[in-house]
Amino acid sequence: MITLYGFPRSGNTLKVRIALGLLGLGVDERTPAGGEHKRSPFIDLNPLGQVPVLVDGEIVLRDSQAILAYLAAAYRPGVWDGQSPGEKGRIAQWLSFAANEIHHGPNALRKIVQFGAALDREAAIALTNRVLTVMEAHLASRTWLECGRLTLADLACAPYLALSVQGGVDLAPFPAIRTWLNQLSAQPGFPMHPDWQVMAS
Amino acid sequence: MITLYGFPRSGNTLKVRIALGLLGLGVDERTPAGGEHKRSPFIDLNPLGQVPVLVDGEIVLRDSQAILAYLAAAYRPGVWDGQSPGEKGRIAQWLSFAANEIHHGPNALRKIVQFGAALDREAAIALTNRVLTVMEAHLASRTWLECGRLTLADLACAPYLALSVQGGVDLAPFPAIRTWLNQLSAQPGFPMHPDWQVMAS
Repeated sequence: MITLYGFPRSGNTLKVRIALGLLGLGVDERTPAGGEHKRSPFIDLNPLGQVPVLVDGEIVLRDSQAILAYLAAAYRPGVWDGQSPGEKGRIAQWLSFAANEIHHGPNALRKIVQFGAALDREAAIALTNRVLTVMEAHLASRTWLECGRLTLADLACAPYLALSVQGGVDLAPFPAIRTWLNQLSAQPGFPMHPDWQVMAS
Repeated sequence: MITLYGFPRSGNTLKVRIALGLLGLGVDERTPAGGEHKRSPFIDLNPLGQVPVLVDGEIVLRDSQAILAYLAAAYRPGVWDGQSPGEKGRIAQWLSFAANEIHHGPNALRKIVQFGAALDREAAIALTNRVLTVMEAHLASRTWLECGRLTLADLACAPYLALSVQGGVDLAPFPAIRTWLNQLSAQPGFPMHPDWQVMAS
C-alpha cells in the first residue's frame, strides 16, 4: 500500500492524488496536523518539511514532480514520461512551465485569494495572462499537451489551472484549456475534488 | 551540429554548456542581441521568449531542465537520468530543488548583486542558508547528489551554487559543497567559465 502525506487543499498533493487515481493504485493518505510536517519524524522523510511525500515500499520521495516522475517510471514507463529523447524533452518543458510560470501565476492568485498569501498580485495576474495565452494557443490544435496522449505534462500543469478559478481566474475565454481540463477529469479513476470547478466546455 | 541560443552570463545557459562539454559535443552557441529573443523568429523557437534554447536536428527545446532531460535521454540514457524508477524519482527531487529553492535563494542573490534585480534580499538570504544547510548535510556522506555517480541532479544544482559566490555567498563554511563543485569542474570536457569561482576545497 502506498502512503501519501499531503494536505486536502494542496494543489501539489492533488497532482499526486490524480496520478494515483488514474493508475488505480490504493493509497493511504495522511494529513500532518499541528505543524508536524516541520518536525521529526516527518522531516526524516523530507528535510524540506513540505508535503506531498510519497512512500511506496522502500521508496521515499518528496516533491510532486519527483513523485510523478517516479510513478510514471514505475507504472507507465515510456507512456507518461515519454518514449524517445525528444518526447522526454518536450514533456520536461511543461514540468518546468508548471514549476515556474503556472506556480507563480495562476497558483499564486489562488494562494492570495484562498489563503491570504502575501504575494505580488499584479505580477501574478500578468503572468497568469501569459500562461493562459500560451496554453490556449498550444492546445487549440492538440488534445493533450504533448505526444498526442496523456503524459506527465498534463498531470503537472492541469491541476493548478483548474484550481485557478478559486483565485478569481475566468477560464471562459479559453475554450481549449477548458476542454483539456474536462477531458482529464473525465478519465477513469480521476478523483474528483471539491476544489476542481471547471465549467463545461 | 547542435545550436545553443544563450547568454554568456546566464546560469541556465551555463548548465547546458556544461552538459554539452562533458558529452564532448560540438556546439554553435549564439547570443540573441538587442532583445531579439523577445521577437520572431526566435519566439517561434520559444514562445516564452527566453534562453536557453537548443536545436539538435529536428529537436527544438526551451528550458534548461528540459534540455538536460533531452541530452541525458539521447546521449547518457540510464546514467544521467537514472536507471530505475527510484533513481529517476530521486534525481527529479533535485531538479525541483534547483528550480525552486536554488533559483529563489542563491540565484536570486546573484541576480540582485550582479544584475540589480528587484528581488527580496532577506528572503533570498534565508532560503540560501536553508539550501546550503540541506546540501552540505546531504553531500557530507556522498560524492555526488544521487546514485553514486554524476547525474542530472548535479548538473541542475551545481552551476547556480558555484555562481552564488557572485551574489555574496561565502562557501567557506561548506566544505562538502565545495568539494562537490570542484569535482564537477574537474570532469573531462568541463567548459571553465569566468563566472565559476569556487575556492579550493
